[in-house]
Amino acid sequence: MGERVWLREVGPRDGLQNEPGVIATEIKVELVERLMDAGVRFIEVSSFVHPKWIPQLADADEVFARIRRRPGVELSALVPNERGLARALAAKVDAVHVFMSASESHNLKNINKTIADTYPVLRPVIEGAKAEGLVVRGYVSTVFGCPYEGKVPVSQVLSVVERLFELGVDEVALGDTIGVAVPTQVAEVVREVERIVPLDRVSLHFHDTRGMAIANMYAGFAAGVRRFDGSIGGLGGCPYAPGASGNVAMEDVLYLFNGMDVETGIEAERYLDVVAWLESKLNKPLASHARQVARSACQAT
Amino acid sequence: MGERVWLREVGPRDGLQNEPGVIATEIKVELVERLMDAGVRFIEVSSFVHPKWIPQLADADEVFARIRRRPGVELSALVPNERGLARALAAKVDAVHVFMSASESHNLKNINKTIADTYPVLRPVIEGAKAEGLVVRGYVSTVFGCPYEGKVPVSQVLSVVERLFELGVDEVALGDTIGVAVPTQVAEVVREVERIVPLDRVSLHFHDTRGMAIANMYAGFAAGVRRFDGSIGGLGGCPYAPGASGNVAMEDVLYLFNGMDVETGIEAERYLDVVAWLESKLNKPLASHARQVARSACQAT
Repeated sequence: MGERVWLREVGPRDGLQNEPGVIATEIKVELVERLMDAGVRFIEVSSFVHPKWIPQLADADEVFARIRRRPGVELSALVPNERGLARALAAKVDAVHVFMSASESHNLKNINKTIADTYPVLRPVIEGAKAEGLVVRGYVSTVFGCPYEGKVPVSQVLSVVERLFELGVDEVALGDTIGVAVPTQVAEVVREVERIVPLDRVSLHFHDTRGMAIANMYAGFAAGVRRFDGSIGGLGGCPYAPGASGNVAMEDVLYLFNGMDVETGIEAERYLDVVAWLESKLNKPLASHARQVARSACQAT
Repeated sequence: MGERVWLREVGPRDGLQNEPGVIATEIKVELVERLMDAGVRFIEVSSFVHPKWIPQLADADEVFARIRRRPGVELSALVPNERGLARALAAKVDAVHVFMSASESHNLKNINKTIADTYPVLRPVIEGAKAEGLVVRGYVSTVFGCPYEGKVPVSQVLSVVERLFELGVDEVALGDTIGVAVPTQVAEVVREVERIVPLDRVSLHFHDTRGMAIANMYAGFAAGVRRFDGSIGGLGGCPYAPGASGNVAMEDVLYLFNGMDVETGIEAERYLDVVAWLESKLNKPLASHARQVARSACQAT
């Protein structure tokens, strides 16, 4: 079909921050380098949130310092405030990800501010990052449903998206934080968002909590979105959302797009090797479908 | 949207035949009755294959005899040959399911005959069932890929579908036996099949081996199909296909369609109660997403 998609790997940040123990810095560095070897071009490496909040990622500065950079690869990090931005700039990130929620209650629980009070915090981060020539992405959580409020009106999503672009973000990532979206809803939200911003500035970030992530991704693709997030082995999710678990596994995303003859730029076989390697480092089986198929194929021979 | 779908439960047959032990007859009977209580209107109860091949379902006659029938519910069984048909008629099934594959190698492995040699076996079964006024469904396996041959040409699928209708089946169920289909492929196959038969005579039967089942179902729905199979707890799959496992879980299918405001006729809450009950009887956790969400919600309170 000649189509292609741009896939962002969020496992090193969103995945590893949710692991029970703290992963060694050298494993994080090797993970990112192996992902680059497999062809991944957008990697969310870590977070410059205060280590008090996420001790698992306290080594963000060191991880960035030790990665051997490659041309054409965008390494990004979550940045909550100006203090985090200073660290991110020192670490020479390629892209800064700011974040907030589309629902008030989740925003309050997650970043301890109302939505209105969040923008003034994000503004200097966005402006500071843009002044340094960095890409800035705005994550919007709970776009398709909130653990505290239930349905989130599309108008509320549009209001947050619009404001983020006014503040200067290059793109937004719409997150199904608790994994409640269904395909028709995805198509509707995409249609509405497209009225205010071109789709090449929109990513979709799905959780597979209810098994809908791949279907939602297909619906987003059919609606014209070409940017999607995935996490190696399906690691990670939102630690503040009760019952939420399971980013969509990147290897399953690769199966979807490869099967549809959509170019991803990532070599699925090599990516699956990284999954196997990461399993050995985390000492636990990763639960993606693609990994299970690969494992049973190994056992069969 | 005013849309509705017709969902067929295949767990009692396709699920329980793949359990390691033999399930007690009374559990099978109670399962079917609980499913009917939840609103399921199409249930594949058992198989009249020779007990030598599938000892787990040797009690098919007794299961049918003990179920308290309800008006408006279609109870069906797999029937491989005339001997099976005699048993099925004696058991007063409402519908007979014959089966074959779209690929030669799978057909040979599964029913020990070439495709051409299968039709003469199916003909008297179909004719005999129709003569008794029963519904006859033709399962076509390996429609989207074969474990031995890989890709299966759509022309081969069409040829089998066409021949089954010539022999008198009322409908076909197109099976992704090894769970390799992707949404664009589903849309294409549906489009081609629709050229030779109206879609109200076509069901889709997906396995979730690679995590694509819900996406494929959505693609089938978007292409106009309204009949889908699912299995309670995702139990079952094809025992003859290496690496194949995991029917799509009906409770996840219910989440998909309920979320899209598509009427299923099934009460999701009551259905989930049946899942919990079945878990207690099989003494193992069932792996569907909806069940995992229900379980973690219980633990959270």
